[in-house]
Amino acid sequence: MNKPSIVVLGAGYGGMVTTVKLQKSLGINEADITLVNKHDYHYQTTWLHENAAGTLHHDRTRIAINDVIKLNKVNFVKDTVISINPKENKVRLKNGELSYDYLVIGLGFEAATFGIPGLDEHAFTIGSINRARLIREHIEYNFAMYNNENEPNDARLTIVVGGGGFTGIEFVGELANRVPELCKEYDIDKHKVRIINVEGAPTVLPGFDPDLVEYAMNSLEARGVEFKTGALLKECKADRIIIEKDGKPEEIPTMTTVWAAGVRANSIVEASGFETNRGKIQVREDMRAPDYDNVFVVGDCALVMNEESGRPFPPTAQIAIQMAETVAHNVKSLAAGSGEVERFEPKILGTVASLGHDDAIGVVLNNRKVFGFMATVMKKVIDNRYLLKLGGPGLLVKKGKFNIFY
Amino acid sequence: MNKPSIVVLGAGYGGMVTTVKLQKSLGINEADITLVNKHDYHYQTTWLHENAAGTLHHDRTRIAINDVIKLNKVNFVKDTVISINPKENKVRLKNGELSYDYLVIGLGFEAATFGIPGLDEHAFTIGSINRARLIREHIEYNFAMYNNENEPNDARLTIVVGGGGFTGIEFVGELANRVPELCKEYDIDKHKVRIINVEGAPTVLPGFDPDLVEYAMNSLEARGVEFKTGALLKECKADRIIIEKDGKPEEIPTMTTVWAAGVRANSIVEASGFETNRGKIQVREDMRAPDYDNVFVVGDCALVMNEESGRPFPPTAQIAIQMAETVAHNVKSLAAGSGEVERFEPKILGTVASLGHDDAIGVVLNNRKVFGFMATVMKKVIDNRYLLKLGGPGLLVKKGKFNIFY
Repeated sequence: MNKPSIVVLGAGYGGMVTTVKLQKSLGINEADITLVNKHDYHYQTTWLHENAAGTLHHDRTRIAINDVIKLNKVNFVKDTVISINPKENKVRLKNGELSYDYLVIGLGFEAATFGIPGLDEHAFTIGSINRARLIREHIEYNFAMYNNENEPNDARLTIVVGGGGFTGIEFVGELANRVPELCKEYDIDKHKVRIINVEGAPTVLPGFDPDLVEYAMNSLEARGVEFKTGALLKECKADRIIIEKDGKPEEIPTMTTVWAAGVRANSIVEASGFETNRGKIQVREDMRAPDYDNVFVVGDCALVMNEESGRPFPPTAQIAIQMAETVAHNVKSLAAGSGEVERFEPKILGTVASLGHDDAIGVVLNNRKVFGFMATVMKKVIDNRYLLKLGGPGLLVKKGKFNIFY
Repeated sequence: MNKPSIVVLGAGYGGMVTTVKLQKSLGINEADITLVNKHDYHYQTTWLHENAAGTLHHDRTRIAINDVIKLNKVNFVKDTVISINPKENKVRLKNGELSYDYLVIGLGFEAATFGIPGLDEHAFTIGSINRARLIREHIEYNFAMYNNENEPNDARLTIVVGGGGFTGIEFVGELANRVPELCKEYDIDKHKVRIINVEGAPTVLPGFDPDLVEYAMNSLEARGVEFKTGALLKECKADRIIIEKDGKPEEIPTMTTVWAAGVRANSIVEASGFETNRGKIQVREDMRAPDYDNVFVVGDCALVMNEESGRPFPPTAQIAIQMAETVAHNVKSLAAGSGEVERFEPKILGTVASLGHDDAIGVVLNNRKVFGFMATVMKKVIDNRYLLKLGGPGLLVKKGKFNIFY
């Protein structure tokens, strides 16, 4: 008997949940399941800004793949995907090649810098464990350098965050909490430190409820964050950025620019010849790619339109996890022979943005607004629920966030 | 009644012990005592290599001056000394000027780079809390960067230490202990890391007992340290060094060069017109400068010849502390009017060099050799004894090293 082979590319939210579900629903005699990932760990992308700020160690954010995947049920291949050849049902890896009967593409996002000069060379992005801890070290290095120069350079103490969306706002919130610790560690007057958020739209968190946006800005400004809204980042250099606000250029000396204003789907998708919309694969109702009945897409590489708003659903962890449940169900059906597939129906349960460990804002079921302490608790409950889903109580105990009162 | 004013410059081992002794022996009606120091803390220079390696936090190494000095008995001036005018009994500070009746110069050392090209620009020195924590951050930053570049650059994982004397050897010992932690933190294969010690003499720790030197080299080599003895550091660049061994040049790619092969007295001493020998003031028997009866010198700025060897006593903490006791006694005698001065007679009680937290070598009373566990305990006892002398049991409990079994 020829078992179908299922290959899952990427161990982000989408790929990981898909694999865990398949591991549970398919017996080892029913299918060969292979998971391919660059690292031997999964990480919670939504926690990386905390690692980057230095408020949470990255080992709390990452999860060893073999803590969740049973290696006697799933083959794990630690390798980098180079390209996909959907016509021949093959995937080329850096160190080999894989064939598949069913493919799940969960290759995630990459930073989009829109051709803004200097961003690729001089700005950091919060896209992986490696990147996040580099940002942490870069900030610490500049603080350590400050008292070692004859002419203290205030640009070492200025951190610019491009983008007032979710990631940018959550990151400045963590930075605001981190700065007093950094100042103590390196004997620096905290009034010399600047955290500047630059956002092109007239307000940060565009699309969020205005009352909550105001609450967030007040909370962050009280902790020293400066906002430059309606301002475009025009150029990034090693020691400064140039922004444009009200038609006028402004230069801000800084050694640390973090770009959190744009992501796009992994460019492998487009380069592999899939039909794309905004760089993503606009999937069918059952999460399959338009032209291939055996290729599913999950997470940030998949585009699903929200009929109500006429815009795509945002690339969030929540959506990726829900997609993964549909994908796992459908792959299992096809691989095990029933052939019945279900359609993906996202349910937005709510959105909570943290503003540091001690404050948050959110909108939950039925558009109820929450903020402050209750919102921080909800944020942690959401994070913990994911861990429970992914790896059961053991993983929850190991990696969960229970420190609601600190 | 006109109280004499005593000014102590520098809160290193010499200046600090002098001030503490004077504070005890002179009543507030007998003299005005002023201590001038750049920082509001004293630090144990002999522990800085641990801060630089990242094996001990710098807050363990530094001691707030007002933890030891009673501010109702001693005026503390946080300022930087610019120059001394001994003819007019004045000291110029960055933010003011002081007059004195008696002066104690304890301005310590600075790095001597002997004109080797690139050392001033590209090498680090372990000379202060600020420098030490910058080295720690520089190493961490390079480890963090390693997995973020398309072409991993092994020079980021190579640390070159120039000088196989006391500081250089103690530093590589700490680094050898630190590397496994760094590799775990940044997901790096520890076989890629190199720690290289470069020493011009045919052996490291020149002057030390050959058996102990062999023991030290074996201990360090077993933990991955490479030695280049009989090798001269010819040039330092941002991304490599050039050494010369057996007449042949050799290039070592490295992003981190730490220069621990030369110190000289603070150059303010020479610039202020004192008669100097090797940059230091060759003091009289009672620790006074040759030409000025009211100027004492203590620590690394003072040169005292060892009649037996015909060479100067080495600039160690042990000698500085002993000098300070003589200086404090003599200043007190002159200020309080008795006029009796004693001569400085150094007693070398022993010398212990650590090789990381778990190994050490030393020579103690009567030239007895010690190594291994017993030597590490002795090292800690010596350090603790100093704390007890400086600040009593309270300071010992706060900053002492009691972790002999880890």
